[in-house]
Amino acid sequence: MAHVLGQNQYGKAENRIVRVYRDSTRHEIKDLNVSVALSGDFDDVHLTGSNANCLPTDTTKNTVYAFAKKYGIDSAEDFGITLARHFVDSTEPVRRARIRIEEYAWDRIRTPDSTSRPTGSEEAGHSFVRNGQEVRTTEVRYDGEYVQVVSGLKDLVVMNSTDSEFWGYIKDGYTTLQEAYDRILATQVTARWTYSYRGAEGESQPDWNRCYTQVKRHLLEAFAETYSYSLQQTLHAMGTRVLDNRAEVDEVRLELPNKHHFLVDLSPFGLKNENEVYYAADRMYGLIEGTVHREGVVPVIPAV
Amino acid sequence: MAHVLGQNQYGKAENRIVRVYRDSTRHEIKDLNVSVALSGDFDDVHLTGSNANCLPTDTTKNTVYAFAKKYGIDSAEDFGITLARHFVDSTEPVRRARIRIEEYAWDRIRTPDSTSRPTGSEEAGHSFVRNGQEVRTTEVRYDGEYVQVVSGLKDLVVMNSTDSEFWGYIKDGYTTLQEAYDRILATQVTARWTYSYRGAEGESQPDWNRCYTQVKRHLLEAFAETYSYSLQQTLHAMGTRVLDNRAEVDEVRLELPNKHHFLVDLSPFGLKNENEVYYAADRMYGLIEGTVHREGVVPVIPAV
Amino acid sequence: MAHVLGQNQYGKAENRIVRVYRDSTRHEIKDLNVSVALSGDFDDVHLTGSNANCLPTDTTKNTVYAFAKKYGIDSAEDFGITLARHFVDSTEPVRRARIRIEEYAWDRIRTPDSTSRPTGSEEAGHSFVRNGQEVRTTEVRYDGEYVQVVSGLKDLVVMNSTDSEFWGYIKDGYTTLQEAYDRILATQVTARWTYSYRGAEGESQPDWNRCYTQVKRHLLEAFAETYSYSLQQTLHAMGTRVLDNRAEVDEVRLELPNKHHFLVDLSPFGLKNENEVYYAADRMYGLIEGTVHREGVVPVIPAV
Amino acid sequence: MAHVLGQNQYGKAENRIVRVYRDSTRHEIKDLNVSVALSGDFDDVHLTGSNANCLPTDTTKNTVYAFAKKYGIDSAEDFGITLARHFVDSTEPVRRARIRIEEYAWDRIRTPDSTSRPTGSEEAGHSFVRNGQEVRTTEVRYDGEYVQVVSGLKDLVVMNSTDSEFWGYIKDGYTTLQEAYDRILATQVTARWTYSYRGAEGESQPDWNRCYTQVKRHLLEAFAETYSYSLQQTLHAMGTRVLDNRAEVDEVRLELPNKHHFLVDLSPFGLKNENEVYYAADRMYGLIEGTVHREGVVPVIPAV
Repeated sequence: MAHVLGQNQYGKAENRIVRVYRDSTRHEIKDLNVSVALSGDFDDVHLTGSNANCLPTDTTKNTVYAFAKKYGIDSAEDFGITLARHFVDSTEPVRRARIRIEEYAWDRIRTPDSTSRPTGSEEAGHSFVRNGQEVRTTEVRYDGEYVQVVSGLKDLVVMNSTDSEFWGYIKDGYTTLQEAYDRILATQVTARWTYSYRGAEGESQPDWNRCYTQVKRHLLEAFAETYSYSLQQTLHAMGTRVLDNRAEVDEVRLELPNKHHFLVDLSPFGLKNENEVYYAADRMYGLIEGTVHREGVVPVIPAV
Repeated sequence: MAHVLGQNQYGKAENRIVRVYRDSTRHEIKDLNVSVALSGDFDDVHLTGSNANCLPTDTTKNTVYAFAKKYGIDSAEDFGITLARHFVDSTEPVRRARIRIEEYAWDRIRTPDSTSRPTGSEEAGHSFVRNGQEVRTTEVRYDGEYVQVVSGLKDLVVMNSTDSEFWGYIKDGYTTLQEAYDRILATQVTARWTYSYRGAEGESQPDWNRCYTQVKRHLLEAFAETYSYSLQQTLHAMGTRVLDNRAEVDEVRLELPNKHHFLVDLSPFGLKNENEVYYAADRMYGLIEGTVHREGVVPVIPAV
Repeated sequence: MAHVLGQNQYGKAENRIVRVYRDSTRHEIKDLNVSVALSGDFDDVHLTGSNANCLPTDTTKNTVYAFAKKYGIDSAEDFGITLARHFVDSTEPVRRARIRIEEYAWDRIRTPDSTSRPTGSEEAGHSFVRNGQEVRTTEVRYDGEYVQVVSGLKDLVVMNSTDSEFWGYIKDGYTTLQEAYDRILATQVTARWTYSYRGAEGESQPDWNRCYTQVKRHLLEAFAETYSYSLQQTLHAMGTRVLDNRAEVDEVRLELPNKHHFLVDLSPFGLKNENEVYYAADRMYGLIEGTVHREGVVPVIPAV
Repeated sequence: MAHVLGQNQYGKAENRIVRVYRDSTRHEIKDLNVSVALSGDFDDVHLTGSNANCLPTDTTKNTVYAFAKKYGIDSAEDFGITLARHFVDSTEPVRRARIRIEEYAWDRIRTPDSTSRPTGSEEAGHSFVRNGQEVRTTEVRYDGEYVQVVSGLKDLVVMNSTDSEFWGYIKDGYTTLQEAYDRILATQVTARWTYSYRGAEGESQPDWNRCYTQVKRHLLEAFAETYSYSLQQTLHAMGTRVLDNRAEVDEVRLELPNKHHFLVDLSPFGLKNENEVYYAADRMYGLIEGTVHREGVVPVIPAV
């Protein structure tokens, strides 16, 4: 029985790049982790050992660094689009490119400047501290015709110390869970959202950076403002909030681990625990995943 | 514009379980990490906050531990099938279940036993040391009708210290890589393979444990025996080798990071590096992914 | 030849605790990771298997959670002192206690409140997002007489995009490094500092939380304001700045990995890299460690 | 009040090196992670920004790679000694050197060789699979006069599925733990041991590789053969066993996290758990540390 080479892709992963803008004494920086994956006419590479069609992963790496100089990095999304288009449009055997980027945010370090601002402090022009709240992500795909941009964030850890209940669920022979009428709800948000932008001729790009900031804001606000009867309900509220507020977004997918905080039984020590002392557990954890999308839109973020 | 709840799933992830068999003084152990994900009729949970259709993740956890006692764990695969069938067949709103399992291997600790075996050593009956070479994985899906089993391994790190070349590739304006005629080829293998078994009535299960051992053997042998002109070529040889030797496997997908080992330039120190001293790099790395499958089979392992 | 049981200690490590204060609708939270280690008269436990002198690690864990309710957690330092005193003073065989605490900071999530503040936003009363900039640490030791408090922080990542040089160093037969007159200086700060407070009768405790905030500020400012000829020089400036400004601190020790950012050679692509495009490397890295302390003080933070 | 520069050290950390021996078609490899730390006359570097006394960390890195070619790597210990002596003896301001090395073990991949060994298999000459059971460690210090070698291992995970009890301990107001008469005992061994070798003139080096193998064997055997009433008792038995069998070792220090395996209560499901089904917990965990040394020897491994 014959064997078939199926889907395959390759490229250089995790190119760590820091781009400094030194246009004034007040520098700007971009800190990215860029991964390239190319698909196309690579049967010979796999089957015969001929590399005549193979653009080396090392070259894809060089291109990332060269483009950071040549075109600059306004946002992860537009940098990814520029890279994806380049690989497909300039290299014959490459038919599709996928660029994944993680971005790490930095804040400016504030320092006192007694001469010019006697009562305050100002931000230093070239000194930064990594923010660490979340990692921004994007994934750009290009097939020679259309662009697809799925952006997101990960490692955003949030907690509500009340306004969360969980009861009225199915009870079967394996149920021991007690119903909860006031619990901590905490999760580490992984979110991805699909832009309607497809890169057609004349189509203008969204303001990627502003949109990112606003989607993050809506996710946080929806988490904070939802009185929750399940993490599923909170997930749905978060996704819906984004769609309601950002017209450029068609689909939101969330992965929300339920970071359990268990109320500690202090009664053996003569103490009453009035929802004050919790044990924060690592594993096992609930894992809630789901997509919310506009009607008529075909979701593209895979459920794996 | 209305919003639609798309694909969603939930369950308890990373249930760490150790099952001990004490049928004789020579104990046996199974060490698993089991993750449950359920899909089905859960719109109300998301939209209205009613949990009437929700089987709590805590219950799915209890079921895992109870089944370990009730049915034992012969292999991760058959344990996963038993769990997946249970959730779908016993709980009305659950339509599909996905069980992911990681398994950690343990070796017996050998100890001298001077009374019975004066010149040798024997394995202790209840003492184990974790093997650590690789993690065995499986993913079982069940939709109420058919079972699908995709097993695999990860974190298997291999190296060929010679018999690897890379040259004859595309050169463009961003190429600086020198051609290599004798290099180290090293990778950390993530492999997944799909079994043809679908769980139809009367269909007998493969010998999951034996099959796992043999697939791992074939992957290692193919890696070792392939004179390589690219990691893509080695990937293809590994996948093909499995299909050639294991009739119960229909599809193999491999993710092979190219763990670069760079020859260190020792000439500034008056030394000649004859492929003897390498710097093992972390990032960036090449990442080669691909599927090999039998003709006529529709591959099911997603490329993400 | 006889063997001696030397230094030994034991306890429960990494007790993850979240303490919620619900005195008003505006909740407060403390998120800690507490590790207990006890030393004392434990020879029999090791030598004879008698546990008559052994306070179980499980009991030390229970004590942590009970004390969080009983005494509250104003700061990691005072909570650690209360715990350390308890174990030594209440349990005969325990002679010394060491409490290590990591603290994770949370910010409030800001949400719009259109009814009361039409143009602004306010912080939600029970919704938090993990800050992630750094982890606060403390280590409290108590020997039945004196308390010793060494506090610190870790994972604080900082970068200067200019004002750093490195030249004029020793050249030997293994030197290839080019001198640098304008480089990125980046590091991940681990800092520890010793308080002069010893817990004598009548001695009042420092304002631990305020002191922490101020030490962190001085570390950041010194990093930002130092024109650097080596990371060692920056380290010294940072330690000195703390001693100059915080009278309650006697000793500062810093561990500063030099997170190398290498200028990428873009000349093969016809581009000039004017300190704009850098490759951020993982390993290997320089590691600079050092202590600055007041004259006459015996440093207590070990160099390992 | 004046400030004093206290203990300080610097160097290049985590130099990842793979050394290949190609003396025949059957290659040998060594895979190390080498960290250099130097102390000495470095006040000016910290205080004035003069680097006249500074041997760059980059040069220490180059030396590691050059020495791997020049002297080869017979064992991590002798390679560390050669490096430490070099830095102190060849560079005036360097007074003390500390070399830390991690070593990763590789096994050969076995492949069938039908022509020469029709019924068996043999090991390939240049193909390796990483072992993964534990990491070998060493730390060499040299002060211009004496050498000190502390070797060890880490990440060796072991389990006894029976022959472990824990009872008869102190009960106080915070005790809830039930006594156990048959429990799982599992730990992840970190061990370090001090060699009596000091590098005096004419003193011959131990057989480092053989000694390592034997110490590991004795640790495993003592763990397996000790009927345990506490992890402390097992720790003492492991340390003692090494001292009893390896004359070249003076001191052993062990760090043994108690990797708790909790018996799952299956009674709500009508099942009896006869020590068969356990939940393997992550955190919190007991942490037991202790030193055993020969009488008259001053222990050198720090308790931190």
